Amino acid sequence: MKRALPLSRVYRLLEPGPVVLLTTAQKGRANVMTLSWHTMLEFEPPLVGCVVSSRNFSFRALEATKECVINVPTVTIAAAVAKCGNVSGRRKDKFAAFGLTPLPASTVAAPLVAECYANLECRVVDVRLVEKYNFFVLEVCKAWLDPAVRAARTIHHRGHGEFMVAGRTLKLPSRAK
Amino acid sequence: MKRALPLSRVYRLLEPGPVVLLTTAQKGRANVMTLSWHTMLEFEPPLVGCVVSSRNFSFRALEATKECVINVPTVTIAAAVAKCGNVSGRRKDKFAAFGLTPLPASTVAAPLVAECYANLECRVVDVRLVEKYNFFVLEVCKAWLDPAVRAARTIHHRGHGEFMVAGRTLKLPSRAK
Repeated sequence: MKRALPLSRVYRLLEPGPVVLLTTAQKGRANVMTLSWHTMLEFEPPLVGCVVSSRNFSFRALEATKECVINVPTVTIAAAVAKCGNVSGRRKDKFAAFGLTPLPASTVAAPLVAECYANLECRVVDVRLVEKYNFFVLEVCKAWLDPAVRAARTIHHRGHGEFMVAGRTLKLPSRAK
Repeated sequence: MKRALPLSRVYRLLEPGPVVLLTTAQKGRANVMTLSWHTMLEFEPPLVGCVVSSRNFSFRALEATKECVINVPTVTIAAAVAKCGNVSGRRKDKFAAFGLTPLPASTVAAPLVAECYANLECRVVDVRLVEKYNFFVLEVCKAWLDPAVRAARTIHHRGHGEFMVAGRTLKLPSRAK
């Protein structure tokens, strides 16, 4: 069962650079895409920048609705995550095809992916770099986390279908957030 | 011994989200900072977006010189990487203090960190989001890689000095670059 995560802790999910699933919904039609090009921009309210190519089917939905959900998967659904990156949602319902469950979000029309251990409901807040770089600035409005998952086995794309799986945890003296 | 890396392969280093060391040089004075908020923006020429806070000593050097190097460390120098994130370069020579070796770069004044397995020489090409988010768009002009390092044990910050160390590699059918 997921719990609401304080927005001040969202950066801890995205800062390590996991592959994520971005969901959108337009005219009652949900879609999901795989994405690695994202970064935190601000701690609180949490701002995230991400690249969604104008060649992706999700681009128009994101641009039109200005809403999405960033879902963070772990290695348990790595095969489905890779598959979501291999086909377009134009002609396929990727949720049904790859065994992903869309659940209603609380603040946006885009769905949460049930199989992901964390879900971040987002609104587009800045599109100045969209035309040149397809770079959207998102504000995370609501965050969900499965508290049972610790040191999540996230996956990290190294190119051409090679994924690094999150390994051991190292604790070092740090003044960083 | 490092070799020049084709620019088309740079994304494979940054896409998994490693902690990096960003070096700058201004008026003969080099500095190094630790940074996790970065993302690829384009494959080739490789464009990288990254956040350097205006509170960081590196901010002014980056803004004024429009040059830097992104250095990718592995777990072997994790302690030095964390230390670089704990103190400002205003009053400390972090290279000397933490055992990092600055080497001349080929296209920028900022130094390469010898102990990092990859070094990306960069120029600032877009500052439109600097005022609002401290977000710089960089173009990688020259890249260096130690060919002996495979499946690099990069480190990935989870907040408060907790680092995930890159684990095993998973290969999945993928049409992604």
